[in-house]
Amino acid sequence: MRVALYFTPAGVDKSQVAGKTAVVIDVLRATSVAAVALANGAKEIIPTATLGDATALRQKLSHDSCLLGGEREGTKVEGFDLGNSPFEYSRKVVTGKTIILASTNGSAALLLGGEADQSLACALVNLSAAAEKALSLGQDLILICAGLKGGFSLEDTLCGGMVFARLKELDAAVQPDNDAAWVAHELYQSHRDRLAQSIRQSEHGRYLEQLGFGEDLAFCAQQDSVPVVPRWQAGRMVLE
Amino acid sequence: MRVALYFTPAGVDKSQVAGKTAVVIDVLRATSVAAVALANGAKEIIPTATLGDATALRQKLSHDSCLLGGEREGTKVEGFDLGNSPFEYSRKVVTGKTIILASTNGSAALLLGGEADQSLACALVNLSAAAEKALSLGQDLILICAGLKGGFSLEDTLCGGMVFARLKELDAAVQPDNDAAWVAHELYQSHRDRLAQSIRQSEHGRYLEQLGFGEDLAFCAQQDSVPVVPRWQAGRMVLE
Repeated sequence: MRVALYFTPAGVDKSQVAGKTAVVIDVLRATSVAAVALANGAKEIIPTATLGDATALRQKLSHDSCLLGGEREGTKVEGFDLGNSPFEYSRKVVTGKTIILASTNGSAALLLGGEADQSLACALVNLSAAAEKALSLGQDLILICAGLKGGFSLEDTLCGGMVFARLKELDAAVQPDNDAAWVAHELYQSHRDRLAQSIRQSEHGRYLEQLGFGEDLAFCAQQDSVPVVPRWQAGRMVLE
Repeated sequence: MRVALYFTPAGVDKSQVAGKTAVVIDVLRATSVAAVALANGAKEIIPTATLGDATALRQKLSHDSCLLGGEREGTKVEGFDLGNSPFEYSRKVVTGKTIILASTNGSAALLLGGEADQSLACALVNLSAAAEKALSLGQDLILICAGLKGGFSLEDTLCGGMVFARLKELDAAVQPDNDAAWVAHELYQSHRDRLAQSIRQSEHGRYLEQLGFGEDLAFCAQQDSVPVVPRWQAGRMVLE
């Protein structure tokens, strides 16, 4: 099994995901939110590329059954029900609901993942479950990091490197398919004993901390605390 | 002085380079070629985004004074005078000539660099000279790696990390401005004792070796062997 990794969805075209299983990673915070919301009973999560797409979709669907979630520059969008903090996606709030999610970096990555043969959402909170599921599907993998503002982000790369490490533990035949995959693995190896600290010191971590989301950082760094695997199915993420 | 680094020109917009000094890095092989060609007496190097731009430009300029250089997928383009191997850019061939350079990844990075306030071409062969020059200009820096096929490349990132290390040695006040800058620095630190080997093992290195360019890899890994600094001036790279 070959594993490619991309630091951002930018520059990855549909031909590169075709026939593969995508593992979409947005630790801060879209894929952490996706795992939490579905674990807490949300019916489905529909990512949209733009705020306009999100509000238009809500108008089409039944208003009562929908929640609009997401962020721009880390904070909740005016008129939206929810921001991008996993703490907002509690069982009481999300059970039975369709979540329309307009996250700046995460939605683009999730939508690109949707072009793959199969696609899973992965964060640190569901890492082992996602890695095991990805391996079980038996296809070559493409790990798509959401990144930050169209560029590299440390936290997604460390998570991608950890996915690679976990896959390799489970199956020695797993091989990196590009430089980014083995560099991410190498970075993870050197940060593995201080992952939460590295995430807090990352560009994105420092930014969210300034916005008052320090608890989100601690939550999103907890490995395997939410062991469910959101999976792409006909334009939305669901649990099986 | 703050130093940002980007693994590829993709996703970097003009506003991010404005008012800064760009250091453009394409170790394999456009900025290595730029240093060699100018050191060997070429008059100037004009990067073009496309093959069509390159041939159109040659038709405009005097045919005798121009050489068309570059590559697609690593090999010389049919009808071009030169490929992308530094060994082709000998004194006998290039003295006094304008080189029109259509390199897949390198030209895009050089053209983006040209949007900065000032721009230098850097590779391992001219690393110290380029780092010293960049520091002397006194502006915040943006290191633009050419990357490979629109994505990350190890060799450019290691070179970028080494530029950061050299800047930091020269001026302790140098600070990384994004995650990619300090990750590149960290990667360089862990590969510094085996740079040539890492470059040979990289995706790009292995590809060029397959094409028969193994000697290019050894040449492009020789630090400070061509201590000149190509500098952007009105749409072309020249030596001062």
